[in-house]
Amino acid sequence: MTSRSRDPEDLLGEAHAGDRAALARLLSIVERGGEPSQALARLVYVSAPPYTLGVTGAPGAGKSTLANRLIASARGGWPSGEPVAQVAVLAVDPSSPFTGGAILGDRVRMQDHATDPSVYIRSMATRGHLGGLALAVPDAVRVLGAVGIPLVIVETVGVGQMEVDVAAAADTTVVVVTPGWGDSMQANKAGLLEVADVFVVNKADRPGVREARRDLEQMLDLSAPSDWRPPVVDTVASTGDGVADLWAAVDRHRAHLLSSGRLAGRRRERLAQELRRVVTARVLERAQAVTSGAAYEAAVAAIDEGSLDPYEAAGRLLGD
Amino acid sequence: MTSRSRDPEDLLGEAHAGDRAALARLLSIVERGGEPSQALARLVYVSAPPYTLGVTGAPGAGKSTLANRLIASARGGWPSGEPVAQVAVLAVDPSSPFTGGAILGDRVRMQDHATDPSVYIRSMATRGHLGGLALAVPDAVRVLGAVGIPLVIVETVGVGQMEVDVAAAADTTVVVVTPGWGDSMQANKAGLLEVADVFVVNKADRPGVREARRDLEQMLDLSAPSDWRPPVVDTVASTGDGVADLWAAVDRHRAHLLSSGRLAGRRRERLAQELRRVVTARVLERAQAVTSGAAYEAAVAAIDEGSLDPYEAAGRLLGD
Repeated sequence: MTSRSRDPEDLLGEAHAGDRAALARLLSIVERGGEPSQALARLVYVSAPPYTLGVTGAPGAGKSTLANRLIASARGGWPSGEPVAQVAVLAVDPSSPFTGGAILGDRVRMQDHATDPSVYIRSMATRGHLGGLALAVPDAVRVLGAVGIPLVIVETVGVGQMEVDVAAAADTTVVVVTPGWGDSMQANKAGLLEVADVFVVNKADRPGVREARRDLEQMLDLSAPSDWRPPVVDTVASTGDGVADLWAAVDRHRAHLLSSGRLAGRRRERLAQELRRVVTARVLERAQAVTSGAAYEAAVAAIDEGSLDPYEAAGRLLGD
Repeated sequence: MTSRSRDPEDLLGEAHAGDRAALARLLSIVERGGEPSQALARLVYVSAPPYTLGVTGAPGAGKSTLANRLIASARGGWPSGEPVAQVAVLAVDPSSPFTGGAILGDRVRMQDHATDPSVYIRSMATRGHLGGLALAVPDAVRVLGAVGIPLVIVETVGVGQMEVDVAAAADTTVVVVTPGWGDSMQANKAGLLEVADVFVVNKADRPGVREARRDLEQMLDLSAPSDWRPPVVDTVASTGDGVADLWAAVDRHRAHLLSSGRLAGRRRERLAQELRRVVTARVLERAQAVTSGAAYEAAVAAIDEGSLDPYEAAGRLLGD
């Protein structure tokens, strides 16, 4: 099963035929970034994107366990009856070192789904290149789509701005809270409210679940009216309680996006945002490149001597 | 006294001759940014910079009162006997709206020094253009130097990163704390320690001054050895107690920079940082410019249709 090919086009073909090693190599190319990753992008953006489900929430809220349960739900097909041939999970952890391999949560899940060739699980980190995961994750999602996987769950470990952004760049975004969440996530409440399509109160066997739900409903009452009000679903991911309801809520949101014609608009907006990020990363790379080396040192010296000002110097360095 | 000239070269001549209205207009040009400001930079970076004294610390620490006292000290000349012909204060407030005029603290000080033609006090804000105050303040300092003012006190209202950066871009940086400061500034302690050349424990007539001093000395004990250990000076800015000691400490730091030859290196590093900021602001402006408008919309549509990928699109938009 180990792929020897180095050509991304060949790797895509092999991955499409079910070679998981080839798929892993493609995603490693994305993680490493740079020219090879951009060459790969050229090949995968021609395919339609997969349906993406973002899962975010505070660390310890049970997102991994929930994602694990959602894999099982997805393997049973959409509640509407439509089958889901394959499902992938991208576990995004900006704080974990770049390993090119699986982290603990993955290994647990991989055991659960090890015998299922239709499930693919992968951690994502980056080598800290500019733009980082915010650029790598959408590309990875496209790779998964291009090899024929129709549903991708993107799970982030925390609620930092980058993680919320990554999870929000999904067709349906699930925000996971737990009883007592209000205190711990005060700072980012508004941001989470804004991106949520579905709320989950996980660990709903614990005290405080009613208060957590009331808190969410009150926030929703106060937010701007829209044609989709995020439902609030109680789950106990560890036992599986409520997961069928969550899967049904995701399906309803998907049906809403499709019937209202909003899916296309949402994806267009996401691409616009993605392109903005690529442009920004590229100009910042350029800024970094011109602010080191001999020409830069010479420019600083010239300013110091009074023969050049910083604006003229910047223009010269950038070739403007 | 009102200057009618619009030409920056004429304004500089008038300001050098003592026309405060001309100087005010020059600083407004800097605040507004853009082409006129860059044209002005061309004229002022030929002059040697003035000696700059940065004053930063938490809001309410008494920085304005202290700066006011330092004006009076400076008017008596350096403790070494060297006279200070003129002194300017730039009060930098990123949170205040762009007014082109004075804020309350200035007006109080202006009353104190209203009859002294050798003192110039000015608030700085910006119209929120990219780079903002981090670019405008060094340019304003250069304008003040170019019109013959040998000493500029740059005072920032808070301890946000930008404010610390601005105050740290000085020849001598004074960090003002008060008894009990440790709790309120926990988050930024390390950052403040790093930039301080002189520490002031202001409001030293209040309880807790000994603890505040001990706290600072312990932090200094733990920091990397250097040929300058920031002295800790107690002041009561409201009565003037200890201000002579502070002024003497500033003078000692200045003498240290001059005798060790470090002043030149420090200024060179600052210019390098400044040039990096200008380059970054310029590339981000470019990113912003190319991510709106028809070409951008067309690129997004092409990615959406699968005929273009984001990296190729970014390259085309940036003309790479």
